[in-house]
Amino acid sequence: MTTGVRRRMGVEERRQQLIDVALELFSHRSPDEVSIDEIAAAAGISRPLVYHYFPGKLSLYEAALQLASQDLAGRFTEPREGPLGARLLRVTRRFFAFVDDHGPGFSALMRGGPAVGSSTTNALVDGVRQVAFEQMLQHMALEGPVSPRLELLLRSWISHAESTALLWLSGRAIPREELEVQLVHDFAALAAVAATSDPLLADLLRRVLAEEPQDSPFVELIGRLAALAA
Amino acid sequence: MTTGVRRRMGVEERRQQLIDVALELFSHRSPDEVSIDEIAAAAGISRPLVYHYFPGKLSLYEAALQLASQDLAGRFTEPREGPLGARLLRVTRRFFAFVDDHGPGFSALMRGGPAVGSSTTNALVDGVRQVAFEQMLQHMALEGPVSPRLELLLRSWISHAESTALLWLSGRAIPREELEVQLVHDFAALAAVAATSDPLLADLLRRVLAEEPQDSPFVELIGRLAALAA
Repeated sequence: MTTGVRRRMGVEERRQQLIDVALELFSHRSPDEVSIDEIAAAAGISRPLVYHYFPGKLSLYEAALQLASQDLAGRFTEPREGPLGARLLRVTRRFFAFVDDHGPGFSALMRGGPAVGSSTTNALVDGVRQVAFEQMLQHMALEGPVSPRLELLLRSWISHAESTALLWLSGRAIPREELEVQLVHDFAALAAVAATSDPLLADLLRRVLAEEPQDSPFVELIGRLAALAA
Repeated sequence: MTTGVRRRMGVEERRQQLIDVALELFSHRSPDEVSIDEIAAAAGISRPLVYHYFPGKLSLYEAALQLASQDLAGRFTEPREGPLGARLLRVTRRFFAFVDDHGPGFSALMRGGPAVGSSTTNALVDGVRQVAFEQMLQHMALEGPVSPRLELLLRSWISHAESTALLWLSGRAIPREELEVQLVHDFAALAAVAATSDPLLADLLRRVLAEEPQDSPFVELIGRLAALAA
């Protein structure tokens, strides 16, 4: 937003303002389509002054992405209390709210393109995936080393959440709330498939299900599948 | 491979040789790590002569990727005969054989990096995904428009196959044959979840299952899940 009254800001304050302005613009249009001129105008400063704080668009983009990554990674933090299905659904909802807020920026980042694919942006995205993976592991409350099949299950479901969100953004033809629940159901379904090849995962699944209440999304899925089979 | 005897090649023949040599090198090491010098040495020609055929490494990389994309897209072609589960398993096996053959090149491409992320490489990758999607649709033998939930199911499973292959490549801790079957099982599981929200998908699923033989991977999964639940 352009402010009518210009006032002097400190260096950090100005940098933060430019990052906020950039993130706001990237949430409506792809970063490739947003010029430094527009960012300068929205911040109410001159184009050369933007370059005083960021040497180029890529460095501003990376700073904005760093802030957005911290925001997203923070949303994966969920207390280890209560049923697992409900915890996973809460995290999935916060993830989808983030995707909804940052639509075009998220799409551009995940689809790759001229402004992305730098080693910095790749490292930031991988960092968020790693936080998601470690949080999932913690909620599994497992002891001992992580089996390759459990790691594949968790990491591939995290990828699946990304691609589902990305596909949803191109058209939003399915209600967001439905997909949030579906992602949790997908996790349960993929876990069940993986468990058929891994006795440790099968034990884990039985242990989790035994503790789920009747209103659990996992229990709901079993009911829905039974209705489908009938 | 360096040939002891150098002979004159036509322009197209030489380009093709360089592409073949590059693909072979990229199947063992990431394209970022392969130099034009190495490609020249492996082709038995001088470095300046490589630049005579390709203006730079990116253009050779893109030509190699184009050939690899055609190869992969061709593997999705499967006659519309016999049970659907067996067809899907055959295609999945050919996909995994491709991934196995082109390991480092496939990883580098899908993970992004300095050599990739150009609009040409993105378009090639999206083109292969689109072929996979259209082939899947054809096998579903559906009439009328494609519902958003069916499209999401097919496209997100194609993404899931990519990420599963990518995760498998980093360590190969799980036998390839097991993951080929698991991917087909994952498809059935994700389809069942999606069908609980979509009556048309539920009809399709029932129709498919009614025609599957006892040795179908879909029927095998149902048996395995029943054993898991018992």
